[in-house]
Amino acid sequence: MVNFAKRMDDMSKSAEIVRNLFNAMTDPQIISFSGGAPAVEALPVEIVREISNEVLTRDKRGVEALQYSHPHGLKDLREAVAQKLLAPKGVQADPEDIMIVSGGLETMNLICQVFLDPGDVILVESPTFVHCVEIFEMFQAKCIAVDMDEHGIIPEEVEKKIQEYHPKMVYVIPTFHNPTGRTLTTERRKALAEIGSRYDVLILEDDPYRDLRYSGEELPPIKSFDRTGHTILANSFSKIFSPGARLGYVYADTAIIQKLLDAKTATNSHTAAISQVLCAEFFNRGYFEEHLRNIRDIYRERRDVMIESIDRYLPAGTKRVFPDGGLFTWVELPGNINTTELLKEAVAQKVAFVAGEGFFVEGGGKGQNCMRISFGNVPPEKIRLGMERLGRLIASK
Amino acid sequence: MVNFAKRMDDMSKSAEIVRNLFNAMTDPQIISFSGGAPAVEALPVEIVREISNEVLTRDKRGVEALQYSHPHGLKDLREAVAQKLLAPKGVQADPEDIMIVSGGLETMNLICQVFLDPGDVILVESPTFVHCVEIFEMFQAKCIAVDMDEHGIIPEEVEKKIQEYHPKMVYVIPTFHNPTGRTLTTERRKALAEIGSRYDVLILEDDPYRDLRYSGEELPPIKSFDRTGHTILANSFSKIFSPGARLGYVYADTAIIQKLLDAKTATNSHTAAISQVLCAEFFNRGYFEEHLRNIRDIYRERRDVMIESIDRYLPAGTKRVFPDGGLFTWVELPGNINTTELLKEAVAQKVAFVAGEGFFVEGGGKGQNCMRISFGNVPPEKIRLGMERLGRLIASK
Repeated sequence: MVNFAKRMDDMSKSAEIVRNLFNAMTDPQIISFSGGAPAVEALPVEIVREISNEVLTRDKRGVEALQYSHPHGLKDLREAVAQKLLAPKGVQADPEDIMIVSGGLETMNLICQVFLDPGDVILVESPTFVHCVEIFEMFQAKCIAVDMDEHGIIPEEVEKKIQEYHPKMVYVIPTFHNPTGRTLTTERRKALAEIGSRYDVLILEDDPYRDLRYSGEELPPIKSFDRTGHTILANSFSKIFSPGARLGYVYADTAIIQKLLDAKTATNSHTAAISQVLCAEFFNRGYFEEHLRNIRDIYRERRDVMIESIDRYLPAGTKRVFPDGGLFTWVELPGNINTTELLKEAVAQKVAFVAGEGFFVEGGGKGQNCMRISFGNVPPEKIRLGMERLGRLIASK
Repeated sequence: MVNFAKRMDDMSKSAEIVRNLFNAMTDPQIISFSGGAPAVEALPVEIVREISNEVLTRDKRGVEALQYSHPHGLKDLREAVAQKLLAPKGVQADPEDIMIVSGGLETMNLICQVFLDPGDVILVESPTFVHCVEIFEMFQAKCIAVDMDEHGIIPEEVEKKIQEYHPKMVYVIPTFHNPTGRTLTTERRKALAEIGSRYDVLILEDDPYRDLRYSGEELPPIKSFDRTGHTILANSFSKIFSPGARLGYVYADTAIIQKLLDAKTATNSHTAAISQVLCAEFFNRGYFEEHLRNIRDIYRERRDVMIESIDRYLPAGTKRVFPDGGLFTWVELPGNINTTELLKEAVAQKVAFVAGEGFFVEGGGKGQNCMRISFGNVPPEKIRLGMERLGRLIASK
């Protein structure tokens, strides 16, 4: 039979991890802290039905929603991004430099198309989001880990690794980081933007959780410190609107957006217009602000219940991150418990998480006693129940 | 500034052609025979609104439509493809071997990800669909043209080129071909499937127009003759449901689908669930059959008016294809008229088409006196008006 491309070998390990993530998400019997899905209660089902009933007519936006569209994305959705999402964070963006994509992850794919030749190096956080590693490896990049501490990736370490590996790009999730829930400080954000400019390296800022803040003060995006166009801001509508709509956006320098438009055209022509119309109206009609308040309340409670439950049910000596927002916390178990092994028993007990080691591109057993715990899609009473089960299992070791 | 990847150079020429295609489509003053968009009247706006109003509720499919989904695509949509689209054409497909993608073109992108290493050869028809050439070139493939006649691509020529160039894949649009409107005969379909098996070469069958038949008899897909898994069937919902929904499907051997799932995951996780739910219900609720009858009637009239107008307004000696379906006819002008030059004057006269030479990967001035004429998205009276304008312009040469 015809041979597969070499890149399919290069991505095989991370592809397997991601496949397992998907599978773990779908068994309804399990209390799952594994997926990164939003709360079912946070999906604006009624709003979307109301909007579609209102605008999907021939004299309003029905034809626009069903006809071919442009790779760039709908103008009023790009304007909503500039005005309602970026301007309040200190980022003054021309809507022409914003492009709509089919979900936040598509940006990583398109950035790879546009910038990566096989063998190019990408610096990633240690740990980092494995789904993006899968994308980087499909483009035959070499991912090099950079140390984090409780305040996020360490700029001095980034500089060292740049000097050693000459990467094309640094991939960072600065706010409520996946998988750890940590947030990069303002000073470090500024330092990263400057490092990008100084060393002529792209800073790929992936910021899908930023609007889900439940405590603490909002921090400026790395992009707000960028003076040379080296920072690319990628974001998603999955957490504030709907993952099923598959919508995201990227804001970058004009020259980069022009190339991304070609890559987008050669990927799938344009993003689903029906999703874009519904999302644009979600902003235009003023639903966004109240919806965001509502879902923050839902998630804040779940975050609090999760942290309480970890402190209550997991053994003494357990370390965990208190995330000011987002969907994840990161747990480090005491002793020699291997979470990959633990997960198998946990699933038999009908509770699931993601084992830590898959998030470390450097391997070598790092993160073996860690786990990513997602609290977003589990109601409070089930969070307690699930963590109690998990605590009992760990205590039996 | 950071360098772009080498592939962006390789695709630059075809990317420019495709950009121009998109731009020509958007000036509302022009009677445009250039784009391949469906008729506005053929978009099921009322049906989609009715479905969304009915199913986008929490107790029906609202959560499924807005939540994360699976890279494979919704099961009932894949079943509808198997039962309502493939089985009637003699293709017995297991829904597990069908994958839903974000528009028909995404299949070409994913097939390239999975199979192509830089420098691999793809045989394409002469002429072929330039948007796919853009995709192939982004993956650094070398496209080699194979001669067609009025019955489509010539199998003996395919064999010769296989022996000479050792391609990985043959890309074919067998039914109401883009740009020519020609249809490949049954014997040649069978021959192509056998050539794929015999030479261990993939046959990528791109068949988005097949259900838009207005005359003549339906022909079996190439895939129906495939005994070894070398043929991959790609199709789209853009022409029978909605391009704005960005939905397509691919049917291939299990091993290929498994790899495509990894590539899809690393492209954009999954296809928009909201589009999939609406399209699945379009089939489940029995809208499809009547809608297809209605839009065939719309297009049949436009095809007939276009052919009449060509015969009436274009100069003696003009050759044109009488297409039994689809959205295009192919016109070859007599004499030395260069259609690329003609197009500039035509646009000034508020009528547009696509100049022929961009569809020939071999270059060398082939197709310089040809044009692709799309009749799908122009009402009959405007077809007459536009062709009269074009005829007058050509007569003035």
